[in-house]
Amino acid sequence: MKIGIVGGGSIGLLFSFYLSSLHKVTLYTRTPSQAERINETGVNLVRGNLSECRKIQAVSFSAWRGTDDIVIIAVKQYQLPGILAVLKKQPLDSMCLLFLQNGMGHLKLLQDIKARAIFVGTVEHGAVRDAPNKVSHNGAGVTKCAVFKGEGKLLSELSSEAPPEFSLKVERDYYSLLVQKLVVNAVINPLTAAFRVTNGTLLENPFYYQILCRVFDETAEVLELERKEEYFSNVISICHNTQKNRSSMLKDIEAGQPTEIEAILGYVLEVAEKKQKAAPLIRNYYTLIKGEEIQGEGLRSG
Amino acid sequence: MKIGIVGGGSIGLLFSFYLSSLHKVTLYTRTPSQAERINETGVNLVRGNLSECRKIQAVSFSAWRGTDDIVIIAVKQYQLPGILAVLKKQPLDSMCLLFLQNGMGHLKLLQDIKARAIFVGTVEHGAVRDAPNKVSHNGAGVTKCAVFKGEGKLLSELSSEAPPEFSLKVERDYYSLLVQKLVVNAVINPLTAAFRVTNGTLLENPFYYQILCRVFDETAEVLELERKEEYFSNVISICHNTQKNRSSMLKDIEAGQPTEIEAILGYVLEVAEKKQKAAPLIRNYYTLIKGEEIQGEGLRSG
Repeated sequence: MKIGIVGGGSIGLLFSFYLSSLHKVTLYTRTPSQAERINETGVNLVRGNLSECRKIQAVSFSAWRGTDDIVIIAVKQYQLPGILAVLKKQPLDSMCLLFLQNGMGHLKLLQDIKARAIFVGTVEHGAVRDAPNKVSHNGAGVTKCAVFKGEGKLLSELSSEAPPEFSLKVERDYYSLLVQKLVVNAVINPLTAAFRVTNGTLLENPFYYQILCRVFDETAEVLELERKEEYFSNVISICHNTQKNRSSMLKDIEAGQPTEIEAILGYVLEVAEKKQKAAPLIRNYYTLIKGEEIQGEGLRSG
Repeated sequence: MKIGIVGGGSIGLLFSFYLSSLHKVTLYTRTPSQAERINETGVNLVRGNLSECRKIQAVSFSAWRGTDDIVIIAVKQYQLPGILAVLKKQPLDSMCLLFLQNGMGHLKLLQDIKARAIFVGTVEHGAVRDAPNKVSHNGAGVTKCAVFKGEGKLLSELSSEAPPEFSLKVERDYYSLLVQKLVVNAVINPLTAAFRVTNGTLLENPFYYQILCRVFDETAEVLELERKEEYFSNVISICHNTQKNRSSMLKDIEAGQPTEIEAILGYVLEVAEKKQKAAPLIRNYYTLIKGEEIQGEGLRSG
């Protein structure tokens, strides 16, 4: 299968490395310099004490011409509009697209794309980009995907042809797949970023845990979750399983980079406003993280 | 006038230094070692480029026998119960007491003290204790006092005999005096500590300012403030006038020390619960700071 991967961040590098063992992968990067470097050196993946390098073809995204069977879009949600503007300039009729963004705000952007099929997925791997050509795979997990529009044949093929150490699981219902990830992200990401703590600290510190419960309750109320207890157990077990991890939002804040707060709490807040539900804590943490983003910018420019 | 000052923190040292120019001051400290050091060296006060030292009699608080005309209690609210237990062991009938604690939760503790008079006050000076015998007076302000119980003659005398650079202003209504300080502390202290920013940043960062407005609104609603706009302007002008200051709660959190959160948001939350008013943000920041206190303990012991 000819696979295009858009985005040279940690997830893009991770997918490029693993999928290239069985497929012809082209990685599309934002900057020409990252593509050049990867063409020279390959992509280096570190897992525990192991380090391995794979040759991968890399191209600047501006040169994308739509010759892949499937394109995996592994950019942040806030980068998506720019990517879609470029994608839509080429005929997409024979192509499948897999979107790996957090949140659910991007679904409305996908409605009017005329592709053969559109898939959405959630990534449960821990990965950090150490250099433009190097990624650390710290937490082995799974990628869950589902059909959003069109037929699912190619997604099943991709799933069956994934390497065993990097499995792709096909789920039946894209909505509940994304909601589950959204709830996890809505609770863990903003709180760990606000308190500057690891995921596990949200369970260990009884006061932080109280706040976690209240933010979860508000999220469940806004999203009108059925089987609320299952969603809650899922949040808790992910905090537990990733207890030593620093969440992506915490890392972004610490690095003075923009976060995915719009895709996560911004989306929940939008739903709350549509349904005219008060969501004081979600609004508070949304605003708090926006404030931290500005402080980070100040630090970088100051 | 014979003045006893209980507490060798920044406020106790500040009052000892200034009041000793016109009165006979005895400073009561928690530790015998601080009393010894002050008896040897005096109290050193630094203001701008000036540094001055005054001889002051210091005694360990356990040796307090109630021979003063007025006792100024300059300890944190959470240290008050221990202090009161000792005070009540001596006859207080001929004595006046002035309490300088934050919040309003301590008022109920003062109800059943049988002294000649009880006064309460708020301190608007910026001061930092640099050493057990040294205090920096960074922000010149004023001390406002009012009668809580008994007659006010001695308070008027104390006020008229205060040094001009350290004035004591007598107010008519103790309740509005304390409420005004409570509102300022409820908004500025927890937010600066949660965000780890100077007081002025609450005005400069538009997202932090949004949160400030919401926490103020909730506080005003719980305390049923009349002339809400005046309280709000007061908060804003204090943020502005102390823009480069780090609040006492922020300093406590950074030093891994207990904060006055119980005296401040704990009190507001108690009122909210009595009145059955929802106060989600006040509850959130109360819980958040309790969580930070625990993290600080972890850091110190870890």
